[in-house]
Amino acid sequence: MTRVDSRSPNQMRPVTINRDYIKHPEGSVLISIGDTKVICTASVDERQPRFMREQQMQGKGWVTAEYAMLPRSTSDRSQREVTRGSVGGRTHEIQRLIGRSLRAVVDLRALGERTIWVDCDVIQADGGTRTASITGAFIALWDACQKLVNRKMIKSLPIRENVAAISVGIIEGTPMLDLRYTEDAMAAVDMNIVMTGKGKFVEIQGTAEETPFSREESNQMLDLATDGIQKLIRLQNRLMVEKLNEVSLGDP
Amino acid sequence: MTRVDSRSPNQMRPVTINRDYIKHPEGSVLISIGDTKVICTASVDERQPRFMREQQMQGKGWVTAEYAMLPRSTSDRSQREVTRGSVGGRTHEIQRLIGRSLRAVVDLRALGERTIWVDCDVIQADGGTRTASITGAFIALWDACQKLVNRKMIKSLPIRENVAAISVGIIEGTPMLDLRYTEDAMAAVDMNIVMTGKGKFVEIQGTAEETPFSREESNQMLDLATDGIQKLIRLQNRLMVEKLNEVSLGDP
Amino acid sequence: MTRVDSRSPNQMRPVTINRDYIKHPEGSVLISIGDTKVICTASVDERQPRFMREQQMQGKGWVTAEYAMLPRSTSDRSQREVTRGSVGGRTHEIQRLIGRSLRAVVDLRALGERTIWVDCDVIQADGGTRTASITGAFIALWDACQKLVNRKMIKSLPIRENVAAISVGIIEGTPMLDLRYTEDAMAAVDMNIVMTGKGKFVEIQGTAEETPFSREESNQMLDLATDGIQKLIRLQNRLMVEKLNEVSLGDP
Amino acid sequence: MTRVDSRSPNQMRPVTINRDYIKHPEGSVLISIGDTKVICTASVDERQPRFMREQQMQGKGWVTAEYAMLPRSTSDRSQREVTRGSVGGRTHEIQRLIGRSLRAVVDLRALGERTIWVDCDVIQADGGTRTASITGAFIALWDACQKLVNRKMIKSLPIRENVAAISVGIIEGTPMLDLRYTEDAMAAVDMNIVMTGKGKFVEIQGTAEETPFSREESNQMLDLATDGIQKLIRLQNRLMVEKLNEVSLGDP
Amino acid sequence: MTRVDSRSPNQMRPVTINRDYIKHPEGSVLISIGDTKVICTASVDERQPRFMREQQMQGKGWVTAEYAMLPRSTSDRSQREVTRGSVGGRTHEIQRLIGRSLRAVVDLRALGERTIWVDCDVIQADGGTRTASITGAFIALWDACQKLVNRKMIKSLPIRENVAAISVGIIEGTPMLDLRYTEDAMAAVDMNIVMTGKGKFVEIQGTAEETPFSREESNQMLDLATDGIQKLIRLQNRLMVEKLNEVSLGDP
Amino acid sequence: MTRVDSRSPNQMRPVTINRDYIKHPEGSVLISIGDTKVICTASVDERQPRFMREQQMQGKGWVTAEYAMLPRSTSDRSQREVTRGSVGGRTHEIQRLIGRSLRAVVDLRALGERTIWVDCDVIQADGGTRTASITGAFIALWDACQKLVNRKMIKSLPIRENVAAISVGIIEGTPMLDLRYTEDAMAAVDMNIVMTGKGKFVEIQGTAEETPFSREESNQMLDLATDGIQKLIRLQNRLMVEKLNEVSLGDP
Repeated sequence: MTRVDSRSPNQMRPVTINRDYIKHPEGSVLISIGDTKVICTASVDERQPRFMREQQMQGKGWVTAEYAMLPRSTSDRSQREVTRGSVGGRTHEIQRLIGRSLRAVVDLRALGERTIWVDCDVIQADGGTRTASITGAFIALWDACQKLVNRKMIKSLPIRENVAAISVGIIEGTPMLDLRYTEDAMAAVDMNIVMTGKGKFVEIQGTAEETPFSREESNQMLDLATDGIQKLIRLQNRLMVEKLNEVSLGDP
Repeated sequence: MTRVDSRSPNQMRPVTINRDYIKHPEGSVLISIGDTKVICTASVDERQPRFMREQQMQGKGWVTAEYAMLPRSTSDRSQREVTRGSVGGRTHEIQRLIGRSLRAVVDLRALGERTIWVDCDVIQADGGTRTASITGAFIALWDACQKLVNRKMIKSLPIRENVAAISVGIIEGTPMLDLRYTEDAMAAVDMNIVMTGKGKFVEIQGTAEETPFSREESNQMLDLATDGIQKLIRLQNRLMVEKLNEVSLGDP
Repeated sequence: MTRVDSRSPNQMRPVTINRDYIKHPEGSVLISIGDTKVICTASVDERQPRFMREQQMQGKGWVTAEYAMLPRSTSDRSQREVTRGSVGGRTHEIQRLIGRSLRAVVDLRALGERTIWVDCDVIQADGGTRTASITGAFIALWDACQKLVNRKMIKSLPIRENVAAISVGIIEGTPMLDLRYTEDAMAAVDMNIVMTGKGKFVEIQGTAEETPFSREESNQMLDLATDGIQKLIRLQNRLMVEKLNEVSLGDP
Repeated sequence: MTRVDSRSPNQMRPVTINRDYIKHPEGSVLISIGDTKVICTASVDERQPRFMREQQMQGKGWVTAEYAMLPRSTSDRSQREVTRGSVGGRTHEIQRLIGRSLRAVVDLRALGERTIWVDCDVIQADGGTRTASITGAFIALWDACQKLVNRKMIKSLPIRENVAAISVGIIEGTPMLDLRYTEDAMAAVDMNIVMTGKGKFVEIQGTAEETPFSREESNQMLDLATDGIQKLIRLQNRLMVEKLNEVSLGDP
Repeated sequence: MTRVDSRSPNQMRPVTINRDYIKHPEGSVLISIGDTKVICTASVDERQPRFMREQQMQGKGWVTAEYAMLPRSTSDRSQREVTRGSVGGRTHEIQRLIGRSLRAVVDLRALGERTIWVDCDVIQADGGTRTASITGAFIALWDACQKLVNRKMIKSLPIRENVAAISVGIIEGTPMLDLRYTEDAMAAVDMNIVMTGKGKFVEIQGTAEETPFSREESNQMLDLATDGIQKLIRLQNRLMVEKLNEVSLGDP
Repeated sequence: MTRVDSRSPNQMRPVTINRDYIKHPEGSVLISIGDTKVICTASVDERQPRFMREQQMQGKGWVTAEYAMLPRSTSDRSQREVTRGSVGGRTHEIQRLIGRSLRAVVDLRALGERTIWVDCDVIQADGGTRTASITGAFIALWDACQKLVNRKMIKSLPIRENVAAISVGIIEGTPMLDLRYTEDAMAAVDMNIVMTGKGKFVEIQGTAEETPFSREESNQMLDLATDGIQKLIRLQNRLMVEKLNEVSLGDP
């Protein structure tokens, strides 16, 4: 079986991360994975979120994420969520995933009593928007935190290690890395994996769209994803080094 | 390390499924897993859902799920979702999970142009409400489908095999089966597994709440869950046999 | 004219009140009146409601009620109110009625600066859900207040007397007590009466669904209801005595 | 005890009904009861309401009501309901009451497959806005139906008899007719009565705000209301006769 | 070309402003321009708006406006905005325009830390409701401010000059003043002008509904509007003088 | 007075229009005016909008616009509109303006029974986002229509002439073209002008933020805007010619 763009099953699409893409945010990137393009920004708010203030959780910060797609980022135009009045289930799921994934590598106590808002806005979609959002948002978050360090608002970078994510799936019996939209639509199984720079899992979300999958297949997908994420971590590290001219945080 | 209720790490809480609990629905159960109690009902609607009619998907049916908690099913009273005007992210995530899990074992074509609404309402919560919902809803759904067969509205049961679910987690380094609420709150990792009667995965959702987890730990959790789910499948089979006096569908 | 379940016009359906039905709330019952089943819980919140704080109403508490039906508590599945985004008119009417009825027998000053949230969730409906809610909620509220006394948070029970409720109606010219759903649907007049242990009215809500009713018919309905409510008060008193082993509050 | 405006307990405030107050609607009045002023309009829509079309209820029409208050119709400015996004409980209760009251005297089959929308908008409030709305809306509805007869869209007036409403209450032990806002605020019991031209009840809604009331007190309030409503019916009849120069419908 | 009501192109409809129309507000008028009738009220709230308090804008007040139409103020009944759950685009546009127009002539610092809520509720519509609202609201606002002066809550009137508004349009090539609804519907261009007592512009909003307009036509419309607004200012001045028996503020 | 970026009062910021920016839509551009960047897409929907179908407006099409800002397109992060549940007043105003402006140059009958959805999403804001949206959206719309012609779905381009827009304002007494955000914030008057290729006005929206403006000042601003828009029209024409290699539509 040949993939539509002639990739081999374990081959990722080309990835670029365009830094400082928007001028206002403390951190911002345009990440492209093939035709999937997401603007990720990190905005520092010098207050704790309301729930922390109400519960008097002193000395800690928070990282939260929001996700949206431009109406015509997709093949058919989709209605804006504001038009029907509330965030849909898919969006909720994705923005909770992004937030959890980033918080897993942030030292919230070292961040101090502030909130970092991460916004992932998909401007062009071709599969893997949620994993691209996580991989890109990490750099935006890292840049924003670096700025806090440079401004001496915090002593050291409150980030323990990298985090990145990729999708895998099973198409006609073959496990494949980094599905495009048309591949995703015909996959029997769809798995999103989020992993740290040190190679541990933050999230495994495997879903049988039609055909339940075996333990064996689960293992094959995890292997593919591990390889892919290591490549993404290396790309992140190059970007971090560029700014730091120092050794990277995670080292896969 | 001892569990609060003296269970061993691989021991499930007592499970009971109280059938025909509500008189109106085509299928209904009260499932209890320890102190977690969920009313699951299956309601047959002799129309396709709107999205199928609009896309002219002929000859197929649909299974959809909704999930809610009574305000005081939890230790502190929580606000009704209608009060703030829309379904929250956690609820969205859970009801999408229940729906996908059930559809994975249903032959939607054999079901015909109708919708089965599954409602899971938690009346008392002590951890594992989403997995209890799936395990209980399967019986409600099976009963509703059986009724359609008995009324000769469909020829044969449109259910391919059982589906059931359980949670596992890692607490102070030890993988444990079927977490209670207090255990869940202190778990470093939380995983929900949905499996079919034939032992294949429908969903794996593993989340590091704080500490990322290794491939080794992932495997230990999947082992624990597989054992637990086989017990649930056997309980389901006994209930199905009671009504059928026939061989069960799945055979773990 | 014979009633569908052979009752005489002045005969109530069997009533049971199952106490401490849910483990978390300070008070909780499952009340069954025939096939109508409602879970009533009373939750103590150690703060005044917002409107009291804003108006600086010191030294007083509040009792408020919410009411909902599970989607398939009824013969046909009804949409959840959160799905359309707001509480409907019927629900609003009922929860305001329950709240007013309970407050009419509570000494809000003796309750102190706290709120008791009463939740009435119908799990199976067969007519008379609002009156069953009031009758059952009184016991949940009484139990919650008793707990406050036992914990020495208030000096004495802030409840002046019992309150209970029943429906009456006129079917084919005959006034009848405690209508089932099918009876309610064909009644020309529908009346809900809320009464205290001392036999005074808290609410009279009579509605001509089709045929306006005379003063004479109004009097016949009030007579039937008075008899029915006295039976409910006696049942409440037995439950209260069980816990107290003391003389009951109201004495009809 | 003297009333603030020197009325005797059984004395109503001056009532005027200003017909054809707004030019567009098929029927419209400004009703004033003391300082309470409500614009009531009746709008004919040549379609059945959606629920009737969906349930294929052929050959019948419907009358529905909406109620609102201008923000500064009250002593303090109140927020518009659209601002918080949904109709509140009190508004729901009132518009349902107005709709039921009017439908009780309309022959929906004779009305034919159309909807009459009744809008009651309070421009100045001083107690009794819901009962004033019913009394005024009856004339707007009657005028709209008369127009349908004149235009030969229906054969005869689909209205069986008049309907009107008044409030009564108990203040410091004395039953009183037609409460002003300041009286209403200090009443121990508040009762709204809706009655037909032939002297039968459409609605009795008695509520103990603080002190439960006896059967005896209930009877005194119903007597006061009956007298008051007869006066309102006579006023309605004079207005109807003016247009018809014929005998009135109801004859109290 | 003749206008439907025989007016000449530069002739306004008859205007009346009925003062103190509602008893509760600090200022209130019923303004009628031909068949367009709007109730305008000004309500004083002795607190700054939330946004000013949050931004700690000390020593200043605010004037804000809301606008609504009764459902049957128009030829066909329109749905209440609360029914669909939010304020529509047209309403938003109009209430922002009214608020800006009034604030342009108010000295917010002299007003002090309070809010004036202006409510414009259209009870009958025949074109020009937004401009009538502004012209009428000015008097309601002036009266409310005068009351603050009389009560010695502010030292002097915080209003710098009058403000009034009118619509103009181009119909079949001819610029015309003060369009009725039927004229508005067939106008190629529609312009709303808001002007102060000293003859300066607060707002110019010209819109080509179909045919773009030239600079020349723009000038003709501004000329017509200037004349019309001067007449409105003189009417306002007469009303102000009536209360003051003093020289008017603006002097066109 | 010197402008912050050393421009002269009548000088526009650099403008670029990056065509075919997003792959899915029928037309799409990224327009940059200084630091203001807006993605404009035009999506063809082969159905009339609902309001046209309901009113049976046969043989005509429609162009509608939506506008949004990414949360961190602005200096401070702003809340997503979906979070508070509805589109705000400013957004409503802008998207109505964009829609009207585009429809003013489209022959809706020639477009046929279809809808073109124009989406303007601001990814970076520095003043003039609404006028940039109109100028950019025209090219997206033109490209989408050109595609319909190329696919032979319509016979000829249903666009009568160009449309473009610019802002002007008065800062410290001097009229200035194309305000940046910091200039806009201190302008006494703010005017947005929309003009066609033939030099006629589609919209004039002038607002005195603080100080009312004279007829003279109005004329100066219109002169500045006319010059600026002619430059934008020439840029549009070059882009159109590129694709067409033909004479442009409008000819300023």
